[in-house]
Amino acid sequence: MSKLVFARHGLSEWNQKNLFTGWVDVDLAEQGVKEAIKAGQLIKKAKIKFDIAFTSVLKRAIKTTNYVLEFSDQLWLPVEKSWRLNERHYGGLTGLNKADAAAKHGKEQVYTWRRSYNTLPPAMPRNDKYSAHTDPRYALLDDSVIPDAENLKVTLKRALPFWEDKIAPALKEKKNVFVGAHGNSIRALVKHIEHLSDDEIMNVEIPNFPPLVYDFDDNLKKFDKYYLNYDE
Amino acid sequence: MSKLVFARHGLSEWNQKNLFTGWVDVDLAEQGVKEAIKAGQLIKKAKIKFDIAFTSVLKRAIKTTNYVLEFSDQLWLPVEKSWRLNERHYGGLTGLNKADAAAKHGKEQVYTWRRSYNTLPPAMPRNDKYSAHTDPRYALLDDSVIPDAENLKVTLKRALPFWEDKIAPALKEKKNVFVGAHGNSIRALVKHIEHLSDDEIMNVEIPNFPPLVYDFDDNLKKFDKYYLNYDE
Repeated sequence: MSKLVFARHGLSEWNQKNLFTGWVDVDLAEQGVKEAIKAGQLIKKAKIKFDIAFTSVLKRAIKTTNYVLEFSDQLWLPVEKSWRLNERHYGGLTGLNKADAAAKHGKEQVYTWRRSYNTLPPAMPRNDKYSAHTDPRYALLDDSVIPDAENLKVTLKRALPFWEDKIAPALKEKKNVFVGAHGNSIRALVKHIEHLSDDEIMNVEIPNFPPLVYDFDDNLKKFDKYYLNYDE
Repeated sequence: MSKLVFARHGLSEWNQKNLFTGWVDVDLAEQGVKEAIKAGQLIKKAKIKFDIAFTSVLKRAIKTTNYVLEFSDQLWLPVEKSWRLNERHYGGLTGLNKADAAAKHGKEQVYTWRRSYNTLPPAMPRNDKYSAHTDPRYALLDDSVIPDAENLKVTLKRALPFWEDKIAPALKEKKNVFVGAHGNSIRALVKHIEHLSDDEIMNVEIPNFPPLVYDFDDNLKKFDKYYLNYDE
């Protein structure tokens, strides 16, 4: 048996302002720091010991991971960071608040971009100040790999190799794994783990808190799924 | 050309109390957090961009590394943690303050243990509450590898493979490397880098702040050495 714990990063500065964030590297809000610390304390209370941790290359997930490990007394664990666990890239919506996006593109269209598995939002221009193409953290990637916009389908497509190469093998070796990531990268992996349909996954919400736990059997075929809470 | 920056962790809770710490996993003091943040800000001001960071498995060095990376805007970099970068293991002196150690063992003897390259302090008993033999972070090491006491010679012996396998190859690939570590693990590597004699190294002090920089030529034969400061 092995355990996989997902923590979506705590509230960020742009969550607070209700802005589409995607790949922009915003910091945790004060509340988000508190949520990450509480997540670590819950994990400690539940006596969950990890073997390895994975996170994205965005600081709100990295800091969440670091707080969780620190407050569960396992900051010494190996942590691997990958762009494949990044949030969904929101393309041209990035930096807009949800009301402005609705005013610009129509409420229904924005709703479709947020809630459709297949529909891509408008692409972010290459010369946008938030473009990932000029960000040194993606400098070693082929330019064609760096997205200008993603839907959940594309998010899953680029997250899946990380599941296949890193997370699933660790779980099959009976390791306990922590993943500190984002609403949509976690949602994409949840779709894969639970074999949910394209429609089903769009109704799954990943809360910023508390952490989500999967207890897997040895083949990762069966699992118990639950959220950590103070009554554990 | 490649750059190696060493940061000794900022002031720890046990530094503050003047206790021999070694492998005990004490936290940074508030001043230590400030020093780590300042180190990150200096690195940002000096526009130093790293490719990779290395640290120990002790939280005072890990947190220093995380603060440095965060405040120099490169928290997304890969960080590898290794016990080989741990502080010197102070054996039976661990947890004593420097006055109590002198009262127990004699001032001169304690001075010798602190300042001799070759003399081992008394071993920590296996059933000591601080023994590394029962610490899960060392569970994958062969028991014979886990120290009960170290002098600087032994510290260098176990740190050297990490230099040879990880740090030096990265520098030869022209990568810029950050190492967040401890007074004696840094001192051991400085002895190796600068070909210092056993006596010479014992007079080298590594300050908690500011960071120490080596600019290497391509073969790591020649270097410029300097401390970062606000006038950079």
